[in-house]
Amino acid sequence: MPAPDQPPDEFALIARLFAPLARDWPGAYGLLDDAATIAPPPGEELVVTKDLIVEGVHYLPEDPPDLVARKLLRVNVSDLAAKGARPLAYLLGVVLPRRLTLDWLERFAAGLEQDQAHYGMSLIGGDTAAGEGPAVFSLTAFGTLPVGTIMRRGGAKPGDRVYLSGTLGDAALGLKVLKGALSGLPVAGQEALIARYRLPEPRPALGVRLRGLAHAALDVSDGLVADLGHLCDVSKVGAAVEVAKLPLSPAARAALALDPRLIETVLTGGDDYEILFAAPASAAEAIERAALAAGVPLAEIGRIIEGAGVEALGPDGRALALTRGGYRHF
Amino acid sequence: MPAPDQPPDEFALIARLFAPLARDWPGAYGLLDDAATIAPPPGEELVVTKDLIVEGVHYLPEDPPDLVARKLLRVNVSDLAAKGARPLAYLLGVVLPRRLTLDWLERFAAGLEQDQAHYGMSLIGGDTAAGEGPAVFSLTAFGTLPVGTIMRRGGAKPGDRVYLSGTLGDAALGLKVLKGALSGLPVAGQEALIARYRLPEPRPALGVRLRGLAHAALDVSDGLVADLGHLCDVSKVGAAVEVAKLPLSPAARAALALDPRLIETVLTGGDDYEILFAAPASAAEAIERAALAAGVPLAEIGRIIEGAGVEALGPDGRALALTRGGYRHF
Repeated sequence: MPAPDQPPDEFALIARLFAPLARDWPGAYGLLDDAATIAPPPGEELVVTKDLIVEGVHYLPEDPPDLVARKLLRVNVSDLAAKGARPLAYLLGVVLPRRLTLDWLERFAAGLEQDQAHYGMSLIGGDTAAGEGPAVFSLTAFGTLPVGTIMRRGGAKPGDRVYLSGTLGDAALGLKVLKGALSGLPVAGQEALIARYRLPEPRPALGVRLRGLAHAALDVSDGLVADLGHLCDVSKVGAAVEVAKLPLSPAARAALALDPRLIETVLTGGDDYEILFAAPASAAEAIERAALAAGVPLAEIGRIIEGAGVEALGPDGRALALTRGGYRHF
Repeated sequence: MPAPDQPPDEFALIARLFAPLARDWPGAYGLLDDAATIAPPPGEELVVTKDLIVEGVHYLPEDPPDLVARKLLRVNVSDLAAKGARPLAYLLGVVLPRRLTLDWLERFAAGLEQDQAHYGMSLIGGDTAAGEGPAVFSLTAFGTLPVGTIMRRGGAKPGDRVYLSGTLGDAALGLKVLKGALSGLPVAGQEALIARYRLPEPRPALGVRLRGLAHAALDVSDGLVADLGHLCDVSKVGAAVEVAKLPLSPAARAALALDPRLIETVLTGGDDYEILFAAPASAAEAIERAALAAGVPLAEIGRIIEGAGVEALGPDGRALALTRGGYRHF
């Protein structure tokens, strides 16, 4: 047995922490083989996405390990949801520095177990390596949908309505709270914002219902302005968003009341993991029914227009001057 | 434009280096979307495997970047091959420190391009992140095979013959050469061993032909003794290998002539990426034909026996005392 504050060797680690997460997937072979098998149901195809996180970049060493794991799984589920796919399974690659304790890893695995059950997913394989730099966790997620029904970034058309699920800006404001800003906000509001930063709420129940209705979709991770810009770039259109229509939580409204300039954080901060999509007016009623059936709040926030780029229109109908276009990865 | 010795931002990097590797896969959407689509042909399923490498652990900063990339792809192809799967596609996750130059990354991508063409694979997606620790490359590979035909580690039976493709020990001896040992070996032999260390030769053409013939299979990465031990553990059997039957390259024979104690390196060194499998005597002729058709040398090296563990029998029929059981990952 290794010392309690040292991780055990690779095989013991896999058997102890990760094999239990694969027990419901026969094709994972108990994580005792070199590969896993996976196949979509007849008439369906797999949607595959990959997001990796680096200690010190995407999370901090002192963050609760179960929340780090759950956020990692959820940002991948968010990609699946925005493409219209039903979450199914995932692979996990990890680079572990020796200083990570077994306790930390057990809490990380417990977070995965909790959320994979919530989303109906199974771990099916992965790889582990030792490395003395920052810890790295690379997750590959699989979802399924009927062949050819994936919602892409391209396809939005002038005249389409632009919709956003949930609320906007909470995570970016939560990060500000963690950095010591927004101290004038009531504690309950601060905590609500931090919770949304630590744990996104992806919307797979909505995503699967938008197939065939939305022209184009993606999830908001880099910020509304940046991600709507990505959708517009690939669709070769522009978009105009009305700031007054943005769905805001009570905590975000309170923060904006303290400092109206925070609207820029709301628009460009990112980490929202809500579904942003464009759909024709003819689909409006079906979309409302889909959101009701999924139990997900949905707001119409603007229009797709001819041209290029994203405008955010203030209450006076004039475009806001934004100084940041969203999170850049390098 | 970024300075020539600085990597460009994430989107430019993906467009410049990686999008060309995805051009033949419609479901990769030019790497401009959040996910990719993949489906096996009717009647087949996907085999998925993941291997990641860490700078300073699995390769050295001064190693040629195209060979680092090709080895990364090949170790994953080796897993697919040993499971009987035909290589199809892959995802790539990268953590890039800023000190990696664009030139290094371009040579890395060129290595991927060369080998994905060789194995008939396509890049279909991935993720990139900045990180100031060691560079990390995480590759998820997909192969296909008829549903239920995967060759597993379990399934070997007492009486089965044990086979090994190619030659054994070259890579581990090549690593010794790189570390300054084996200076008594002729230069041509040293170079042959180093080449095998830097660039494994996975055997997909053999692997797909072994489906239905082998009882159990895996690729040798941790060392023959360790990996045959894994196969035996899962199959709940033992194995006896005859050292005199091990397939050795001329360079490995020359090294053993210089120092017979290197047989331990050959048996336990690892990084061979050959297919090791167990098959009943009744399949012997079909297996010989499969190896001929694949153009892959094949050696019968021992037997599966009742019990547990792996014995390596010397020319006198007595078991060698091995001090190392193979590469451990932690």
